[in-house]
Amino acid sequence: MAPKKGLLERLDEGPVIGDGGFVFALEKRGYVKAGPWTPEATVENPDAVRQLHREFLRAGADVMQAFTFYASDDKLANRGNESSKKYTCRGINDAACRLAKEVAEEGDALVAGGLSQTPTYLSGLGKVHTQKEFQKQVDVFVENKVDFLIVEYFEHVEEIEWAIEVCLKMGKAVVASMCIGPEGDLHGVPVGECAVRMAKAGAHVVGINCHFDPFVCLDALRKMKAALDAAGLKVHLISQPLAFHTPDAHKQGFIDLPEFPFALEPRICTRWDMHKYAREAYKLGVRYIGGCCGFEPYHTRALAEELAVERGGLPKASEKHELWSAGLRMHTKPWIRARANRSYWETLKPSSGRPFCASLSQPDDWGVTAGDASLKQKTDATTDEEIAELNQHAVNGP
Amino acid sequence: MAPKKGLLERLDEGPVIGDGGFVFALEKRGYVKAGPWTPEATVENPDAVRQLHREFLRAGADVMQAFTFYASDDKLANRGNESSKKYTCRGINDAACRLAKEVAEEGDALVAGGLSQTPTYLSGLGKVHTQKEFQKQVDVFVENKVDFLIVEYFEHVEEIEWAIEVCLKMGKAVVASMCIGPEGDLHGVPVGECAVRMAKAGAHVVGINCHFDPFVCLDALRKMKAALDAAGLKVHLISQPLAFHTPDAHKQGFIDLPEFPFALEPRICTRWDMHKYAREAYKLGVRYIGGCCGFEPYHTRALAEELAVERGGLPKASEKHELWSAGLRMHTKPWIRARANRSYWETLKPSSGRPFCASLSQPDDWGVTAGDASLKQKTDATTDEEIAELNQHAVNGP
Amino acid sequence: MAPKKGLLERLDEGPVIGDGGFVFALEKRGYVKAGPWTPEATVENPDAVRQLHREFLRAGADVMQAFTFYASDDKLANRGNESSKKYTCRGINDAACRLAKEVAEEGDALVAGGLSQTPTYLSGLGKVHTQKEFQKQVDVFVENKVDFLIVEYFEHVEEIEWAIEVCLKMGKAVVASMCIGPEGDLHGVPVGECAVRMAKAGAHVVGINCHFDPFVCLDALRKMKAALDAAGLKVHLISQPLAFHTPDAHKQGFIDLPEFPFALEPRICTRWDMHKYAREAYKLGVRYIGGCCGFEPYHTRALAEELAVERGGLPKASEKHELWSAGLRMHTKPWIRARANRSYWETLKPSSGRPFCASLSQPDDWGVTAGDASLKQKTDATTDEEIAELNQHAVNGP
Amino acid sequence: MAPKKGLLERLDEGPVIGDGGFVFALEKRGYVKAGPWTPEATVENPDAVRQLHREFLRAGADVMQAFTFYASDDKLANRGNESSKKYTCRGINDAACRLAKEVAEEGDALVAGGLSQTPTYLSGLGKVHTQKEFQKQVDVFVENKVDFLIVEYFEHVEEIEWAIEVCLKMGKAVVASMCIGPEGDLHGVPVGECAVRMAKAGAHVVGINCHFDPFVCLDALRKMKAALDAAGLKVHLISQPLAFHTPDAHKQGFIDLPEFPFALEPRICTRWDMHKYAREAYKLGVRYIGGCCGFEPYHTRALAEELAVERGGLPKASEKHELWSAGLRMHTKPWIRARANRSYWETLKPSSGRPFCASLSQPDDWGVTAGDASLKQKTDATTDEEIAELNQHAVNGP
Repeated sequence: MAPKKGLLERLDEGPVIGDGGFVFALEKRGYVKAGPWTPEATVENPDAVRQLHREFLRAGADVMQAFTFYASDDKLANRGNESSKKYTCRGINDAACRLAKEVAEEGDALVAGGLSQTPTYLSGLGKVHTQKEFQKQVDVFVENKVDFLIVEYFEHVEEIEWAIEVCLKMGKAVVASMCIGPEGDLHGVPVGECAVRMAKAGAHVVGINCHFDPFVCLDALRKMKAALDAAGLKVHLISQPLAFHTPDAHKQGFIDLPEFPFALEPRICTRWDMHKYAREAYKLGVRYIGGCCGFEPYHTRALAEELAVERGGLPKASEKHELWSAGLRMHTKPWIRARANRSYWETLKPSSGRPFCASLSQPDDWGVTAGDASLKQKTDATTDEEIAELNQHAVNGP
Repeated sequence: MAPKKGLLERLDEGPVIGDGGFVFALEKRGYVKAGPWTPEATVENPDAVRQLHREFLRAGADVMQAFTFYASDDKLANRGNESSKKYTCRGINDAACRLAKEVAEEGDALVAGGLSQTPTYLSGLGKVHTQKEFQKQVDVFVENKVDFLIVEYFEHVEEIEWAIEVCLKMGKAVVASMCIGPEGDLHGVPVGECAVRMAKAGAHVVGINCHFDPFVCLDALRKMKAALDAAGLKVHLISQPLAFHTPDAHKQGFIDLPEFPFALEPRICTRWDMHKYAREAYKLGVRYIGGCCGFEPYHTRALAEELAVERGGLPKASEKHELWSAGLRMHTKPWIRARANRSYWETLKPSSGRPFCASLSQPDDWGVTAGDASLKQKTDATTDEEIAELNQHAVNGP
Repeated sequence: MAPKKGLLERLDEGPVIGDGGFVFALEKRGYVKAGPWTPEATVENPDAVRQLHREFLRAGADVMQAFTFYASDDKLANRGNESSKKYTCRGINDAACRLAKEVAEEGDALVAGGLSQTPTYLSGLGKVHTQKEFQKQVDVFVENKVDFLIVEYFEHVEEIEWAIEVCLKMGKAVVASMCIGPEGDLHGVPVGECAVRMAKAGAHVVGINCHFDPFVCLDALRKMKAALDAAGLKVHLISQPLAFHTPDAHKQGFIDLPEFPFALEPRICTRWDMHKYAREAYKLGVRYIGGCCGFEPYHTRALAEELAVERGGLPKASEKHELWSAGLRMHTKPWIRARANRSYWETLKPSSGRPFCASLSQPDDWGVTAGDASLKQKTDATTDEEIAELNQHAVNGP
Repeated sequence: MAPKKGLLERLDEGPVIGDGGFVFALEKRGYVKAGPWTPEATVENPDAVRQLHREFLRAGADVMQAFTFYASDDKLANRGNESSKKYTCRGINDAACRLAKEVAEEGDALVAGGLSQTPTYLSGLGKVHTQKEFQKQVDVFVENKVDFLIVEYFEHVEEIEWAIEVCLKMGKAVVASMCIGPEGDLHGVPVGECAVRMAKAGAHVVGINCHFDPFVCLDALRKMKAALDAAGLKVHLISQPLAFHTPDAHKQGFIDLPEFPFALEPRICTRWDMHKYAREAYKLGVRYIGGCCGFEPYHTRALAEELAVERGGLPKASEKHELWSAGLRMHTKPWIRARANRSYWETLKPSSGRPFCASLSQPDDWGVTAGDASLKQKTDATTDEEIAELNQHAVNGP
């Protein structure tokens, strides 16, 4: 078998489809707990994780990203989390890599190991301690011979620079992606400057993931692209947005919306939203086009279907869909057969069925960031008194 | 091992939690095609079907319903569908039973085989032909020793009476459930009369599934209960509604909504809607409480969590949730920890993030029913000309 | 000059256009206080009242209804109201009649004197006392030689029967109109039965005014018509609904909506809603077609424009409008000129510009009616303590 | 009697309340035609105009602005308008001044004569011709001894500079107000630069009127203030926004919204919106606080009520309102009496009663401006063919 083409080669040739969001999908399936977002699922329920990988592969994903989100040791021991002790950081990350690899080999996908932001950084403990957390995960990725590394879901450009530095030492391609929007990082660094700093730190691909919907995300990427062009920096772009509409989110993204994380349903994007997103991203020049929280396999399939010509074919799962809803030709009801056409779905504005709800929300805006006591790493579980205090704060303001 | 308690015994003791919707969940995962709703997934992708069964079991479902929806021979050969030829009705139904059984035995769940309405009936071919279709599936169910039979998703009480008759001969408990709302069946039979006729036909449990949201469904069940009480009939009640809000649907339910089936996202119920539904259903006296299209495992878990006291404990998947969002106590952001309380989620009115969309839709109302040419069984695939004609009709009316 | 044709003769010939709502229009102009709805404006600011009469006349109204709403003596002395003492019931009603008459003579309009429900009835003081209140107003109407009497805005059919009885003695045509919806009167009398009882009591025209939007109002009128037909009663029908959309109102109408009376703006009907209303009302057989609260002169003009053929011409004010927005042909901006056509306005679904607001509200539902202490006539002003108690009740329920 | 204080003196002392919108108010009353916005109402129906002046005076307006909007000679002869010929520019403007003066003397209000943008400018006919149009109106204002001049509703800063130049020669205080938003004028001049240019041209008061809602208008004024401060220019600020919510309007304001001008009802601001606007405007330092299209007398009263302390008392019309809805204490229904408090109305989010409508609209964006053929002055009436062409354009784009 010929060796797999690497990430950068693939990006040069055409679009690479990323996979979708593991924590939200597995939470709905019953294997992940919202809050700690328990990556130990890779150890506890490998079948469920493997199945989700397979679905994304089948939907057209070119990358199997090991489910190592929030799997740094400090996070696994935060606020009553016993996973660090029970499964160890190494155990969880190792299991994740093996699952991703196993499924990747069922197709022609690449395997990526991922780092995300750490409680250590938010606690203000500095570069040495933060990089130590990253190193523990990266060591496992290297042992497992992943194809590339992805550092994603960072709210502060300073921390992602530290993560890029750790990754580059391993000699792998590095993708760097922040969870920020058009307003920039949480310390006030503009979004364009974040892109430039990631590229200058050595990342081969830079961009944005999570926190905002596809269209807000692309607004931010436009600014990144402009700043990179102005600085004469040539790197590939990645976008892996939410599959939730967030026009009303402020700087911190969907975390602050009142619906996070258990009432986001009415905001879920349709597959047709994803067609539009894939096309706009491609036109903007983004070549790593995937998704994050909320992306289910059918959203990923929509990306692959929209870019079928550019990718040279439809994904496996399109056998159960067909482009632009052609499968509806087999429906019993004639008016549903009549919907088997592109313009019907492209122009439909779907109703919510919730007449007592508004269309936009006012986000929480606590505005706390790295160093704030309320964000610090803390091994004890949250007490009732602490919850009561937080609620008081929510009502009265700080 | 002691023999499993039967369905009726369990219903007498307390609530039985049904599982969720296979066709919509598997469509999103890439294994089912919307339109024909391809039950051949049981043959083509048994792992995916098995995994979904496991998720519902883990979420608290007491019944593993074999994925035999729309798996009658005539449907498998309708409008270009080649599954009848390729896999045979027997092959598909047999695989479905074995998968359901395998997972049921991993817990203490019952196995049910299911029948649904047929193109034969809609084509006006009469009782003999229609029952022949049912018999083919029932034979497989009996060979596989399913625990009980469920006849569901019928729009006409006449057809469900014929199905009940076939099932009763097998000596199993029979659950009968129509996809109708407060306005009654599609031939104009009032909903209360439908309940009475199903009970008189011998069904042990009667009720409603699919087509309407939980609260519209309960409105219809209230009428069923009143009519059954008035007739002095004692049967258990079942409700297995959609997980989509449908206050604007007319008589034919969500099929007619413009968003069906590919833009229903903004209508998806939250887990908190399901708490409310479970409590209201239980108070009304419904004891078989489950879900249909749109129900994902976390919706089913919410039913089991709401009725934890009545059921004597939480389901396995609650380890990854905890009652009323207590898992959020471990979240990094303090304002999300503050949301770890019941009243927050009970009173939240979630926004859609779609300010250019309305909250309600005007359904299609073609009003065609059994016997109409456009509904008849037809082996050839739908042609472009037929689609064009249908679109003409949609614009101009009949 | 030939004598004016009477009301009944006009109704036999074709539609009679009623005028609009004085209390809401004059409140916005600064002459009426919401709460007591101060009819003493006829004495205090006759110019403002006269001007509004003129605008309705110009808009096509065939009736000048004297502004005698809530001008019964007991109401004028209720809860701190000093108008009874200051201006007397006679003074206010007399001024109202003279203003209506003066403007009616500028065209060919009829003059009507109106009675509405009384605190005396709500206080449970019985027929004799209630009719005494009516008699005081009717005496003034007769002295002023009004063309007919209208008894309107009654929530209880019993009270309106008493009012009809008083009016009939005067030998004038009597129009009887309740502020109820499809659910019937506040004592539980079905809406059809209310119509029959009003007709049997001798009213020449029966129907509905206020409390509900035009389309809900017509739903109720359909029931009235069916009941009258079933009873073999031949009377004319009147509809004078709100110009506010109220699909979410319960039995008590818009009073209970949280937006009443100072935030109803987003519910205001457009002129195009009124075209639709006029046509539907006419098709249903309603011949007295007017409006109540929220109806501004341009709403009334829309009724007259829709029925221009049936009425034999356009009203005076159409010079400043032209049918179906033809005046826009003179607009500077070309895209506004493009809107000078009927189908544009007929199909437009106007947005609210309020993305943080829902489309429907949950009404208050106190469910108190005649005889309840909180509704009784009371001369003293409301105290702070009483307001505090009411707010307590609103939060906790009764 | 002591001479009236002048505008600038009043602005130095505290807020001056402007009046509201004549064209929309009189259109609803039946005296103005939308499209040409017929200022000849001053000649045809002086009583109606006088009455509206009185209502604004009573509501607290400190300025009676003569109804001379769009009363330039070229506009009065545009697209089939015969008013120029029939009434003459002089006749219309003179009547307007006399009516404003008559009512102003019933109180202590100032009289202003107003100029607005001209078809001559839009036709690209240059400074000399444009100023000639202005001069014709200004001559009448001077003859009538108005207290000050207001040049308002200009989309291009170049044209308003020409208007200011004409006005300054008359030796009166000049208020200059553009109908632009945060994006600046229609030729691309930033909003801050517009303010600076108006001030440098000699205007004593500069700001914004019409086209946007109060809160968008204040966003633009914030930019104006910042630019004026940066330029060291000291002038007073004026804001006279719409009483329609327009968060979705683009650069050209509400004109482009699909609801303009005949379906704006759901966007109408409540009186409580106006309280908020008045307070925010005052805090920003705006001292001439009024309204434009959509402002009815009760909106103006709300401005005066919010600033009652700053103005030293309530306006006359507050006798029929009382601060923060205190008049509701006299309502019959107890739950309405319970609403007689400030926090109820301040926090209410009013529903639209229109569940089939969205909350935001997509504006038309033709993007044509001065010099475009479609905007040019033209004496002939618009033909059917022209309308058909425009509709074609609306569908296909330019």
